[in-house]
Amino acid sequence: MSEKAIKIGLVGFGTVGSGVAKILLEDGDYIKARTGLKLELARVVDIDTKKERPVKLPAGILTSDLNSLLNDKDIQIGIELVGGTKIAKEIQLKMLAAGKDVVTANKALLAEHGNELYTAAHKADKCIAFEASCAGGIPIISAIRTGLAANRIKAIYGILNGTCNYILSNMSKKDESFRTALKQAQDKGYAEADPALDINGHDSAHKLAILASISFGCEILPSDIFVEGIENIDIVDIRYGKEMGYTLKLLAIGQKTDDGKLFLRVHPSFISSDNALARVDGPFNAISIFGHAVGQTMFYGRGAGMMPTASAVVADIIEIAMGNSKKLFKHLTLEPRNKISSSIGKIDELASRFYIKLKVSDKPGVFAQICTVLANHEISLSGVLQHEEHNTANVVPAIVITHLTQQKKITAALADFAKLEIVKSKPVCIRIVDIPEDSD
Amino acid sequence: MSEKAIKIGLVGFGTVGSGVAKILLEDGDYIKARTGLKLELARVVDIDTKKERPVKLPAGILTSDLNSLLNDKDIQIGIELVGGTKIAKEIQLKMLAAGKDVVTANKALLAEHGNELYTAAHKADKCIAFEASCAGGIPIISAIRTGLAANRIKAIYGILNGTCNYILSNMSKKDESFRTALKQAQDKGYAEADPALDINGHDSAHKLAILASISFGCEILPSDIFVEGIENIDIVDIRYGKEMGYTLKLLAIGQKTDDGKLFLRVHPSFISSDNALARVDGPFNAISIFGHAVGQTMFYGRGAGMMPTASAVVADIIEIAMGNSKKLFKHLTLEPRNKISSSIGKIDELASRFYIKLKVSDKPGVFAQICTVLANHEISLSGVLQHEEHNTANVVPAIVITHLTQQKKITAALADFAKLEIVKSKPVCIRIVDIPEDSD
Repeated sequence: MSEKAIKIGLVGFGTVGSGVAKILLEDGDYIKARTGLKLELARVVDIDTKKERPVKLPAGILTSDLNSLLNDKDIQIGIELVGGTKIAKEIQLKMLAAGKDVVTANKALLAEHGNELYTAAHKADKCIAFEASCAGGIPIISAIRTGLAANRIKAIYGILNGTCNYILSNMSKKDESFRTALKQAQDKGYAEADPALDINGHDSAHKLAILASISFGCEILPSDIFVEGIENIDIVDIRYGKEMGYTLKLLAIGQKTDDGKLFLRVHPSFISSDNALARVDGPFNAISIFGHAVGQTMFYGRGAGMMPTASAVVADIIEIAMGNSKKLFKHLTLEPRNKISSSIGKIDELASRFYIKLKVSDKPGVFAQICTVLANHEISLSGVLQHEEHNTANVVPAIVITHLTQQKKITAALADFAKLEIVKSKPVCIRIVDIPEDSD
Repeated sequence: MSEKAIKIGLVGFGTVGSGVAKILLEDGDYIKARTGLKLELARVVDIDTKKERPVKLPAGILTSDLNSLLNDKDIQIGIELVGGTKIAKEIQLKMLAAGKDVVTANKALLAEHGNELYTAAHKADKCIAFEASCAGGIPIISAIRTGLAANRIKAIYGILNGTCNYILSNMSKKDESFRTALKQAQDKGYAEADPALDINGHDSAHKLAILASISFGCEILPSDIFVEGIENIDIVDIRYGKEMGYTLKLLAIGQKTDDGKLFLRVHPSFISSDNALARVDGPFNAISIFGHAVGQTMFYGRGAGMMPTASAVVADIIEIAMGNSKKLFKHLTLEPRNKISSSIGKIDELASRFYIKLKVSDKPGVFAQICTVLANHEISLSGVLQHEEHNTANVVPAIVITHLTQQKKITAALADFAKLEIVKSKPVCIRIVDIPEDSD
């Protein structure tokens, strides 16, 4: 490895950008000792050059002029940490055209336009590295692409959004309402002032699109993914679930069936409270990957934040500077959409178990009516729960847990429930996800 | 990537060897699609060429003649899966001398002679890859060396022996004796007929030596590691621990203190039952790594077995064939022993909390005597437990939990306890390990 420094240009000097600058400036000697690489932060570009940041840059490297980075032939690696999909995409394409390898944490951009960008990178004979786009500091992209390279990936189960996980675990542990838990997440800095993209599940879907694309080797778009958020979750249902041995998580799931169908979805999921993923609390992320050789694996860590995300960005810089990323990236070819669209399964066809809560009149014959509706749609019960309640104006919650059945049958049954005179409000329906466990 | 096949020679056609052959023979097309590499199993060497194996090799490649592999110039990668330290070391040195990169799962060999082998590889301008040596299918070596490359590693907490974990979790979950649980582990194939190396903690120490060496960048030998096994664990103590919120695990721990001291140890450890590692059950392994940037991470999966271990071996083959391992391996230089030996801390200096069980006479003044001994050694109590018991011939167990204190003080207190007339049998002493949790 030569003594010549590898020059790096950073665009986007926000939270993660500051963390990346901090590592490059403070840990250069350590990285050199471990890897032989001399990394130099040569240029930092941001529209705001005045704001106070938690790291002090060497004089003269901060600028608002992107061209000063693009035109510097000595800068080999460009880091895009701008976020958003429009300007960020232009910046990445310009970096590639200017002969720079690209490192990014931009999950929305890669989920929507990954294949276009990868194609541009292939044409420019450069690479795009994106470890930081999914699950922050957890080296999950590297695990899938190298550590588990000998495996045909069968399924991914991920807790990919720290905000949702913080909210759901606080609801569950402290018996708090969604609103209270959301407010706490905002106070802690885990949720944005506008938390929509997190809590509606679309942030998780972006990350799932990226993980599923590299796991299954085909171009998966967010629009291929069935998405339901956590915004309507009621603490009451978390309580009932707990009583029956379930913990509620927002799971991102990608599964490949034996006949090659892909099912991709993000939704609130009751999982067994004994499962390792049920014990992932607070702002942490975790991903269980099932490979045909390795069996079950799980990767756990902080899914966001300045230093964890910077850890992933710098790992990518090191891999590029070593020359390792390029070879791997060359073979990042995703089956094009027209080839795979027929193999993407619809949620309606997916078999699942369901938790259904009905608010019903407290009178004789109610359970018979419920069971008749379910029987009409060939849905069989695996459990029921009804507590004695007081002061409820003769309306009581009745909970049924189904055996495996298809979503379309449940949808039809829910429509029938709504027509019953005894059913007093919109039924609540939450999927139960049985994550395989090979614990023995 | 050229179309020319990369030829591979395998020595040791046992369980893991059969798994490696299976992947290379059955998943070649899949690996080629993902990596561009055409891998060819060209030679398999084993002293027993007759035995039935779970995979059928192409005609003519199985032989008992090691030289036919060494002398085949077209074989670029040699896999050593013989085990043991003597012949295996010779085989690896011969492979390196014959110009082959080496892949191995041999933890005992690398723990004892790693630096010597790495030096031989550097001299031969070849590399040794050893993902499969620790934690089976979990890509933990790759995580430490690449995914977390931007981190100064502060601590490792690992469940590294599936046999011990199977025994301890069965004892805890099924309330079984050590002997019953060991028998079950043997029946299941998780424990050898002679399980000594597993249950005495030395297998875990081998793996810790390897993980700590690459994490802390210095040559660590098994003899640097304090080791205590699980062979004397009594189900009674697991029960008492459980009652107080602790789960017993055999932990392998490597810690670097702020002043640069390294503490390395393998011993039965009571950890909080809420900790993620407490929930790792059965034959699974898990490793929590703490990095200065990434914070807490955890990696979980099967730590042994034919296919999980083969998954790691083939991942190494792919990385070598890509040309990636070599560059990383070049910088695997470990601080030599004479430089680091003074920084390896002694267990006597280590601060810990302790669980102490004394069998004492059931009469007045007993707790006063116990407390006096502890006070004499400046050990302060954080909890006590004594149940009313019947039919115990006036001998009752008394349990004390200490605050943080040094091992040497505990050792002295235990010696004093033994002198007391009221203490009726050898005290039981188990360390309590408080794994840092940044869960919020």
